Amino acid sequence: MVETRRQQQLDEVASALFRERGYAATSVREIARALDLQGASLYTHMASKEDLLWSIVWRVAERFRTTVEPLAEGPGTPEARLRAMIGAHVAIVAGEREHAAVFLHEWRFLGPERKAEMAARRDAYEARFREVIAAGMRDGTFRNGHAAITARALLSSLNGIPAWYRPDGPLGPGELADAYANLFLSGLLADRSEPAPARPPQPPRRRRTRP
Amino acid sequence: MVETRRQQQLDEVASALFRERGYAATSVREIARALDLQGASLYTHMASKEDLLWSIVWRVAERFRTTVEPLAEGPGTPEARLRAMIGAHVAIVAGEREHAAVFLHEWRFLGPERKAEMAARRDAYEARFREVIAAGMRDGTFRNGHAAITARALLSSLNGIPAWYRPDGPLGPGELADAYANLFLSGLLADRSEPAPARPPQPPRRRRTRP
Repeated sequence: MVETRRQQQLDEVASALFRERGYAATSVREIARALDLQGASLYTHMASKEDLLWSIVWRVAERFRTTVEPLAEGPGTPEARLRAMIGAHVAIVAGEREHAAVFLHEWRFLGPERKAEMAARRDAYEARFREVIAAGMRDGTFRNGHAAITARALLSSLNGIPAWYRPDGPLGPGELADAYANLFLSGLLADRSEPAPARPPQPPRRRRTRP
Repeated sequence: MVETRRQQQLDEVASALFRERGYAATSVREIARALDLQGASLYTHMASKEDLLWSIVWRVAERFRTTVEPLAEGPGTPEARLRAMIGAHVAIVAGEREHAAVFLHEWRFLGPERKAEMAARRDAYEARFREVIAAGMRDGTFRNGHAAITARALLSSLNGIPAWYRPDGPLGPGELADAYANLFLSGLLADRSEPAPARPPQPPRRRRTRP
């Protein structure tokens, strides 16, 4: 129990330092100092600085894998699934900004094997988005286009959130997710068939049919 | 002349190392070794490792400032200006991936004053995008929404390009810019008034009017 709390503290402190100064520039001594420990006694809680990075990165990767990836399988239309995936992704990057930032920017400092494992996981994750987007392009929900580029554009965009989002700002994570989903689904240009609350009701237009 | 070439080599080698290993994890000795120089003689070409980072970051910032920012002022509609800005931004991030990646991810390792200067420049740059987006929202070209979030979403998305774009891939920078501009302007959802080359001509719909 004490061990678990210490472990949590260690993760928090290391995340904050890795995020602020970068993994490579953060020494074990600094982590120990932030915890009021001696460098040597820190090693009773972890095997190496890289293990600490791995534990943070791995946990965030697991969160993405277990909460976002299943949404790709459905149920629902590609649009509904993509919205759900955006919502779940935003919940992580806005809800755990510090850990998410370390996951996103410091994973490349892992040793070769762990780095390769994480690269494979990231590819698989991106593939879930690409598949849902491609499914929507096939069934005519989405305009034809580059599913791979769209998936990358969307994920890069969402992954920028930890850099600027403040939980005490005007938007909660749910509203933030809606703003991103609306932007990517409906685009910036006005005059479209998508729900535009300020406009009076419009005659329904058919969707999912292409001439 | 020789000095200039050496300076260029130094920038290239440092960019590659900073990008691959991160600024903090790259030593002056490694930069010197990659140039077949002794560490000490490297200092005849630069005052410090941070100066080298600054020279790379500053040059990229200047490229953005001089080629993208003026496009915010017009002429043209907000849509046309935003498209032009996206095109010019993509030309930099796709055309100078290595320098752009260092600019984007390593600038935070600058010393406090230079870091503050760069943060201010980045804010000013983002503000140009926000202003054009807000202008489009005001004149009804763009749907009402969060101009600040839209600007951040767009820039995060474009700034992901250096991480995956390959110049020998299927898309040139111009096509890439079009794909991003179309995505952000028209969104993923089909059935809209925006140009969709595969569809037969549609009766014109009015734009820029809101009920």
